[in-house]
Amino acid sequence: MNIVLSRDSQVRLMEDTVANAEKSFGQFCSLLAAYTRKTARLRDKADQLVRQLIDFANTENPELRATVRDFAEDLAKVQDYRQAEVERLETKVVNPLKLYGAQIKQTRAEIKKLKHAQTNEIKQLQKLEKLRQKSPSDRQMISQAETSAQRASADASRTTRQLEDTVGTFQRQKLKDLQKIFSDFVTIEMVFHAKAVEVYSSAFQTLENYHPERDLQDFTAKMQGVYGHHTARPLADSNPSPPGLWPPASQGPSSVPPRRADKGRPHADHGRFGPTEWGRGQPAHRACKDGC
Amino acid sequence: MNIVLSRDSQVRLMEDTVANAEKSFGQFCSLLAAYTRKTARLRDKADQLVRQLIDFANTENPELRATVRDFAEDLAKVQDYRQAEVERLETKVVNPLKLYGAQIKQTRAEIKKLKHAQTNEIKQLQKLEKLRQKSPSDRQMISQAETSAQRASADASRTTRQLEDTVGTFQRQKLKDLQKIFSDFVTIEMVFHAKAVEVYSSAFQTLENYHPERDLQDFTAKMQGVYGHHTARPLADSNPSPPGLWPPASQGPSSVPPRRADKGRPHADHGRFGPTEWGRGQPAHRACKDGC
Repeated sequence: MNIVLSRDSQVRLMEDTVANAEKSFGQFCSLLAAYTRKTARLRDKADQLVRQLIDFANTENPELRATVRDFAEDLAKVQDYRQAEVERLETKVVNPLKLYGAQIKQTRAEIKKLKHAQTNEIKQLQKLEKLRQKSPSDRQMISQAETSAQRASADASRTTRQLEDTVGTFQRQKLKDLQKIFSDFVTIEMVFHAKAVEVYSSAFQTLENYHPERDLQDFTAKMQGVYGHHTARPLADSNPSPPGLWPPASQGPSSVPPRRADKGRPHADHGRFGPTEWGRGQPAHRACKDGC
Repeated sequence: MNIVLSRDSQVRLMEDTVANAEKSFGQFCSLLAAYTRKTARLRDKADQLVRQLIDFANTENPELRATVRDFAEDLAKVQDYRQAEVERLETKVVNPLKLYGAQIKQTRAEIKKLKHAQTNEIKQLQKLEKLRQKSPSDRQMISQAETSAQRASADASRTTRQLEDTVGTFQRQKLKDLQKIFSDFVTIEMVFHAKAVEVYSSAFQTLENYHPERDLQDFTAKMQGVYGHHTARPLADSNPSPPGLWPPASQGPSSVPPRRADKGRPHADHGRFGPTEWGRGQPAHRACKDGC
């Protein structure tokens, strides 16, 4: 009977192996899908910041306008790399983890087959034992029952070997896939972070090179040069003022450029702002349920 | 009257400058607070992945256990750097932006003062004009009104100069602070990304160095060595089985280590898992309202 007991233990170990893999891979899948989604949310927020920076730049003096735009462009570039990160995580990390559902289903089916063979083996053994107790002298019946038990045992034995192969292959694939998936995760993250360092280094230079003095001169000139450049509000009287009280309106035509006139250079969105791309406009829970 | 009109334009320009700064800095503050919050959410999700990896490692064979733990440690390190990023963004980017509220309030108060002086100047001028039309011969009254208008004009003129200084200082500070805040943002991001590249490079090596063969041998041994190591399920009969059908239960005491026994090395959380730190356990909208 020992082999039956150990086969039972073996099935339980196999079931544990598959159940653990199913649980762990399911959780990895959910967590990495959520991680990807949160990364997409961070990208969205930074995209909003890019747009806000460009709107702001359009209201500022030339030096700051150029600086803020260049900075916004760099920030947008980082988001492009983040978008690539999101897409790669989806393709090379989340999707492969989803595929485990199918593999686990197949291995479960194989285990079920073994359980059936095992149940049959136990049934035949119990039948044989009963016969031995009730009719110890009925050699023919006992011999038949022995043959049936032997067949059932051989069947269970063969199924066990098949299952050992299946579960062994499953385990080997699991270890390799795990290594591959997490290596891909690390590579994707590493590439993104390296690109971000590169782009932010350039952004840092852009900001360092900004000197507010010229903009401040422009601002002061605008403040002082504003005399007579705006349409006058109608007043109760337009009589000439007494001499000596007010200087003449001496300034020529306006040199103040209109504000917010400079909207011709929208953020280069690199095709990322369409309604269909990943993570955009989807409810936060959506990818959570996506097959993990 | 021209100087009054141009002062009016100047006040409007100053008001525009301050209103634009208020709007832009408010939006930068909200967006960067949200960006920081989303970064904290990403850190939380990665922390969950770290815990899940450690739980998983504890159910696996030694080689994979060590690999997954090392990988989890590296992933936790990246989250430590992300936590530092979150704290620095809060201190050096979001908080300084919040401080603009106070500065803008003060500048607004100065502008109000100028508006008051300006209204008084216009009132005195209108009074003078009325007198000139109604009683052109009353030299004494006209002379008094001229003096009052002159005083009001001098007052408006002085206030205007003061305000030019105030708004000039405000603008200078705004440009410098903007440069400082965004440079700090870029530096914080750059440091984080550089650290992440460093840690992920080590994580990549850890995963590359994993060879599943030994774990697979262990797994196979466990599968085959399981015979007789589990407590037997009681069966109907414990009589000796017929010779030749079942091999003897030959194995000695169990060499299979208990699963999930190995929980002694929890994730080094570096004090980040307390209930009080930033962004943890707070509703998503909370920091949104935080004074921007």
